Amino acid sequence: MASPEPEFRSIVVSFPCQVQWGDCDPAGIIFYPTYFRWMDAATWALMEGVGYGPKRMREEHLAMPLVSASCDFLAPAEQGDRCEVRSRIQRFGGKSFAVAHEIVRADGAPLVAVLARGSETRVWGRFSKGPGSPMKGEPIPEALKASLRAK
Amino acid sequence: MASPEPEFRSIVVSFPCQVQWGDCDPAGIIFYPTYFRWMDAATWALMEGVGYGPKRMREEHLAMPLVSASCDFLAPAEQGDRCEVRSRIQRFGGKSFAVAHEIVRADGAPLVAVLARGSETRVWGRFSKGPGSPMKGEPIPEALKASLRAK
Amino acid sequence: MASPEPEFRSIVVSFPCQVQWGDCDPAGIIFYPTYFRWMDAATWALMEGVGYGPKRMREEHLAMPLVSASCDFLAPAEQGDRCEVRSRIQRFGGKSFAVAHEIVRADGAPLVAVLARGSETRVWGRFSKGPGSPMKGEPIPEALKASLRAK
Amino acid sequence: MASPEPEFRSIVVSFPCQVQWGDCDPAGIIFYPTYFRWMDAATWALMEGVGYGPKRMREEHLAMPLVSASCDFLAPAEQGDRCEVRSRIQRFGGKSFAVAHEIVRADGAPLVAVLARGSETRVWGRFSKGPGSPMKGEPIPEALKASLRAK
Repeated sequence: MASPEPEFRSIVVSFPCQVQWGDCDPAGIIFYPTYFRWMDAATWALMEGVGYGPKRMREEHLAMPLVSASCDFLAPAEQGDRCEVRSRIQRFGGKSFAVAHEIVRADGAPLVAVLARGSETRVWGRFSKGPGSPMKGEPIPEALKASLRAK
Repeated sequence: MASPEPEFRSIVVSFPCQVQWGDCDPAGIIFYPTYFRWMDAATWALMEGVGYGPKRMREEHLAMPLVSASCDFLAPAEQGDRCEVRSRIQRFGGKSFAVAHEIVRADGAPLVAVLARGSETRVWGRFSKGPGSPMKGEPIPEALKASLRAK
Repeated sequence: MASPEPEFRSIVVSFPCQVQWGDCDPAGIIFYPTYFRWMDAATWALMEGVGYGPKRMREEHLAMPLVSASCDFLAPAEQGDRCEVRSRIQRFGGKSFAVAHEIVRADGAPLVAVLARGSETRVWGRFSKGPGSPMKGEPIPEALKASLRAK
Repeated sequence: MASPEPEFRSIVVSFPCQVQWGDCDPAGIIFYPTYFRWMDAATWALMEGVGYGPKRMREEHLAMPLVSASCDFLAPAEQGDRCEVRSRIQRFGGKSFAVAHEIVRADGAPLVAVLARGSETRVWGRFSKGPGSPMKGEPIPEALKASLRAK
């Protein structure tokens, strides 16, 4: 991600989720690694929305290993809170890409509460011989980029 | 749960869930403690459906600590599988209750695949002074039992 | 596991663990699926102790999928509690085996507090072509059984 | 954390951990939120090392909620890898602090492999009336800072 690629004009995809009892810690609020679990699932959902679902990824030996991840926690969430992760491509490098995630409370209230803002940088890669075998980065297909672009 | 209470004629509540990338292990299938996480969430959803949602449970200092849990794993689930946990009260003791869970693949196919069958035995209890303080069992309210009974 | 195999006279292996902040729920005690995560790790450690470590299991395409799991929760554990899982083979079937786990608080006190008692039934299996490919049960090697027998 | 506090000359504390089967994903490597679970546990261990263990934190109603967290993933880890998180205070603000974490493979090899480098920014806070009640930030005790300073 060294090259200063311009911001990508991306579609935004929503991944619904809910804070469960076991996602919370003794302070009674969400345990923060839960947000990263959600962001990971949201990235998979973003890709599924443009034709790269889990089945295809498995069959074509594709993977999206992480380069980095970060999150700012803006407001606490409690058990029962219905949320959604709104994800979009932030930028594309040659073999890598960054996803921006906004996690909001989705309870139908007119004002949406932003709970957290995160980002993941990932490589687009392929296992040489299926899961468990060595993996290396590949150029991101132009057709994939096109389908992630906002119309 | 020593007394051989008769089977309770319970409503059945469905809790939707989906197998995520991070829920699976290197064998490429669901890591089994995930089923217990789902069963826990499904029990909370069962109670929420009859008026005992997380907010009320917190405010009234109620809790449902576990006595035991078990699960039979019948068929593997993979990333992306849409599932649901179908939960019902198996029986009520004085201060305890058992929940039976059936976890099925919910992909719209005419034949429903049962992935796992589990059960939890729990105490109905109250914290003396809010979360973190000592908790003791309480008789399960008759009104709660009534609302969980199949019409 | 239908056949009533006699109880196996097994070695007992200890797996040390500690209750972390994120392992606990808003009641301030351990979230119960954590015990199953520990039991899974303890079974892997039991096998590693007799020469079947993760590296060998991977290279030989071996796996230990679950048939069932259960646990009785006897006393709550809190953040910071140092524990150990004491695991032993309960019995061997032809291609399956059961592991009994006792989870105790390991704080050096003269009286050991048993927190939970669980059990897992697993198949001994092999992937046809590495992780992700179909897996089928195999007879458990006699040498493996022998090395798990108490001297 | 607005003020540009100088880097703090901190003690470094090691938190041992091991990659378990259930910490890995279908790619056969560690699922990245696991690193954040470890960093959280490592921060608690850092504080315990200077007298602020879980028991004291609970009794004094203290908490360390997150402002932000980030991690760079440098090399993959596999099941069985023994690791350690090396944590130190990066800087202190008035009521907040940043912890830097280096996660290394700890297998006794002469060359230490760095797997990941992360950081957490947290508030030092106190619940008004125990867990679950509102929490607000407090000045970090000077004695705590002093005990975290490298001698």
